[in-house]
Amino acid sequence: MCEANAYLRQDGKDEMLMEMVDKVIPEGDGLVLEDIFGRRKLIKARIKELALVDHKIILEKEAQEN
Amino acid sequence: MCEANAYLRQDGKDEMLMEMVDKVIPEGDGLVLEDIFGRRKLIKARIKELALVDHKIILEKEAQEN
Repeated sequence: MCEANAYLRQDGKDEMLMEMVDKVIPEGDGLVLEDIFGRRKLIKARIKELALVDHKIILEKEAQEN
Repeated sequence: MCEANAYLRQDGKDEMLMEMVDKVIPEGDGLVLEDIFGRRKLIKARIKELALVDHKIILEKEAQEN
């Protein structure tokens, strides 16, 4: 299976958000993550990088409000 | 290996853009696609959907200029 794990990158650290992600669908100002069991999470973030061979989806929050 | 194929969706049809994509990195108003051999393509498009178990990255052009 070629699912990946989704991480939120903040301050140089990657925090695991969801394992075994199959689908990623942009929706509004966020992303719907769906794992291989059909469980969904809506995250207010955008894609920073995909590294599929490493099974990684790196997300980041929208630009900070300064 | 868990690379995917990248397709551009236009008028309901998916056109193959690049095979064996490893990395996808948003850059400016486009995306850098990098395959498992390190070959890169810069595409003016955004991610419409990832379906990793199906090895598919579906892209679409930015909103049409009407």
